[in-house]
Amino acid sequence: MNVNTLIELMGAILPKECIITDKNSLRVYECDGLSAYRQIPLMVVLPGSTEQVQSIMRLCNEHAVPIVSRGGGTSLSGGALPHKDGIVLSLAKMNKVLEIDERSLIARVQPGMRNLAISEAVKPYGLYYAPDPSSQIACTIGGNVAENAGGVHCLKYGLTIHNVVSVQVVSSDGELMELGGSGFESPGLDLLALMVGSEGMLGIVTEVTVKLLPIPEVAKVLMGVFDSVEKAGNSVAVIITSGIIPAGIEMMDNLAIRAAEGFVQAGYPVNAAAVLLCELDGVQEEVDYQLSQVSKILHECGAVETRVARDEKERALFWSGRKAAFPAVGRISPDYYCIDGTIPRKFLGKVLSEINGLSESYGLRVANVFHAGDGNLHPLILYDANIPGELEKTEELGSRILQLCIQVGGTITGEHGVGIEKIGEMCIQFTDEEREHFHLIRECFDPKRILNPGKAIPTLARCAEHNLMHVHNGELPFPELERF
Amino acid sequence: MNVNTLIELMGAILPKECIITDKNSLRVYECDGLSAYRQIPLMVVLPGSTEQVQSIMRLCNEHAVPIVSRGGGTSLSGGALPHKDGIVLSLAKMNKVLEIDERSLIARVQPGMRNLAISEAVKPYGLYYAPDPSSQIACTIGGNVAENAGGVHCLKYGLTIHNVVSVQVVSSDGELMELGGSGFESPGLDLLALMVGSEGMLGIVTEVTVKLLPIPEVAKVLMGVFDSVEKAGNSVAVIITSGIIPAGIEMMDNLAIRAAEGFVQAGYPVNAAAVLLCELDGVQEEVDYQLSQVSKILHECGAVETRVARDEKERALFWSGRKAAFPAVGRISPDYYCIDGTIPRKFLGKVLSEINGLSESYGLRVANVFHAGDGNLHPLILYDANIPGELEKTEELGSRILQLCIQVGGTITGEHGVGIEKIGEMCIQFTDEEREHFHLIRECFDPKRILNPGKAIPTLARCAEHNLMHVHNGELPFPELERF
Repeated sequence: MNVNTLIELMGAILPKECIITDKNSLRVYECDGLSAYRQIPLMVVLPGSTEQVQSIMRLCNEHAVPIVSRGGGTSLSGGALPHKDGIVLSLAKMNKVLEIDERSLIARVQPGMRNLAISEAVKPYGLYYAPDPSSQIACTIGGNVAENAGGVHCLKYGLTIHNVVSVQVVSSDGELMELGGSGFESPGLDLLALMVGSEGMLGIVTEVTVKLLPIPEVAKVLMGVFDSVEKAGNSVAVIITSGIIPAGIEMMDNLAIRAAEGFVQAGYPVNAAAVLLCELDGVQEEVDYQLSQVSKILHECGAVETRVARDEKERALFWSGRKAAFPAVGRISPDYYCIDGTIPRKFLGKVLSEINGLSESYGLRVANVFHAGDGNLHPLILYDANIPGELEKTEELGSRILQLCIQVGGTITGEHGVGIEKIGEMCIQFTDEEREHFHLIRECFDPKRILNPGKAIPTLARCAEHNLMHVHNGELPFPELERF
Repeated sequence: MNVNTLIELMGAILPKECIITDKNSLRVYECDGLSAYRQIPLMVVLPGSTEQVQSIMRLCNEHAVPIVSRGGGTSLSGGALPHKDGIVLSLAKMNKVLEIDERSLIARVQPGMRNLAISEAVKPYGLYYAPDPSSQIACTIGGNVAENAGGVHCLKYGLTIHNVVSVQVVSSDGELMELGGSGFESPGLDLLALMVGSEGMLGIVTEVTVKLLPIPEVAKVLMGVFDSVEKAGNSVAVIITSGIIPAGIEMMDNLAIRAAEGFVQAGYPVNAAAVLLCELDGVQEEVDYQLSQVSKILHECGAVETRVARDEKERALFWSGRKAAFPAVGRISPDYYCIDGTIPRKFLGKVLSEINGLSESYGLRVANVFHAGDGNLHPLILYDANIPGELEKTEELGSRILQLCIQVGGTITGEHGVGIEKIGEMCIQFTDEEREHFHLIRECFDPKRILNPGKAIPTLARCAEHNLMHVHNGELPFPELERF
């Protein structure tokens, strides 16, 4: 379809200032948090109401125009990367609270509302919204739904899917649907779970009803210092097996510790092989009891030292290093590439030593920062894009690490999504039969495949090509690990 | 297809003793827990392995023979009701533990394993499986997956979907798929959530990997006695808003209290309008603190009396009445019909008084027993099937109660599923668009619609007929409630 005709038709739906077509303004939208991939779209539209979203979808569906929806643009997997012949549908203007029901502990909000803004809005009622991705200042709840976002506290409080009650969705042909409901259980097939984490391929979310929780009375953080990464990793499994579910357990290895300490002076022991940060929250009695238990377990597991943050100020300091770990690594290397995979907790120690070996054989430093409680690794590969071939080597190492995750029974993404970044690894993670079902289900919602095309689910042809390139003669990269 | 040919072909897959075709033996399978509906199937098969299930599915798919899978046969919505031209596939022989991984807190079991048997098998490790439907002695984990079963403790520990890590499934054409995984998040579309609660329509589950939890150190139960159902209902919302999530909160009204007390002498106050049973579990310090908090809240909400069970013996006694409530009601009435719906907690008081009004206008007694914490009602309608027209009147009253649930924003099933029983109410709960998506998704998994046909998702034609009969001139039954 001719761009000018499309602009004209769009003009009948939206006011002029909500349609962006000039090159300079479009450049703002050319990438998301995965800036290695860039693409200028045909047009960006900023609807202000569900009705406008419906009209946009009807128009695009009729003319088979690709649509990429976008929240805060913080995706780390290229989920919001524009399509060259398509439209970016920004939900930025739909950012209001529609309803707060403090008795039912729910809030109904528009998709463009920022994650942190929800907690701010319900704070006067003593409530908050639990999932807290690192980007929570900027990322939106609509994006969180698309990616099934997690965060430091998802170990105890769950991912987005566990904290969303229902969503209003505009289908690819402009129809309105309400998925989920206030009940614990919903009859019929669980379309809400299907929508959450579908990376913008099944519909455009126009309202989200989230669960709220009372703000915990106390939160305490305990730091465990280890002379071995393996001991630190093993202690995590022991804590959880003991029946204690901390609000969060984060782990950093020596390179990450040194980078963070150099940046924010959080008081981390720079010679430690690993540091564990364990947060416990709830009522005073419960937290005190759990602190003593966790501290005991850490010592039994070989911790050299444990320290409880004395006050809120020190607690914030302990966390500051973890939160600044990514930019801190940015200070000690020209570039870094953040990997996101999961593994069963019990293999933490083993997998970390494999990553160490890979790091050495590729000649690339790897700093490890991760949500240890849920086995979600974030290895950061340090490289220099100006050295010819180093980016390619880095991507290959990243892919090897993800394949390692698959081999020990884990997955290629813990919380960043597949997007464009990991579409190749989807060929290894799933069988043809499983991927075929993804495509079939997608077609139920979007027969013309206009919603975020080319992302998240690779075609069979693409996988045939990928596996030919990467799985040499059908052999997995670590045959010695097959008996894990 | 000719039955004898089918028997012959099945004989090539299964040993003779695993194929049932004689009328008397088939009668055992003619109904499940919803005995008002009965149907003798063509044949019952009892495979002993995943490979046999695959062969059976290939055969049935090729010849388009309907398949109804069956676990313990305890469904209360007719989920396992046979199809007259179909086969019942019983998973009873596939009832073994395949693996217990106490470090990762998971167990892999076959679908025919009984719910309670899982907890018994992992007890030596100090672990248990949390979801506990009332039928847990008899119901199977495969059936729990099909119905997304709940139970008294699902308020704190979640439904089946929250306690299953992955399932192995045989598709309608005999292919094998692994849905879900050990990671917190799974890439791709969430097919595991789609499978759980799909009532046997998307595939045959042949392995289930469940999450295990450490057995809580202490469990205490507190009884709250009220002179008003509304006050009892409101106190539930206050407890949960305060941030305490009890292991379970159950409520019974006066008729249910009297029936239970007459049956098991649990020590219930027979003149109370409502009794609340609140169980708290965890470590001693936490439970003690929460007990004092809940007790305080109940008094503030108007409880006449609160009592904590002194020991394990009294705790068991307190629960015995609640657990025996259904058979107890059976003692005071020739027949009873158990309804299962959910409502937002805050409407508990209001909805109960509406049900009271309906009970009077229909001239039928209703005893109320429910999982108050998650707003899951179980009104028991007392009737006499020998009085002409009384069953029909009862079914009409049941349908009115479910419509009331929908109107206040709830659902037509909390934990019993749709099956054959509530297929009509699905027409009111969902729009044409939403139901159409259910059908489309179902066809991705089962193009010939051989899996549990006629259940759970009504056709558009059926709904047109249903709504013509039940929603008079497009008006909902309680117009005065529309502003809820």
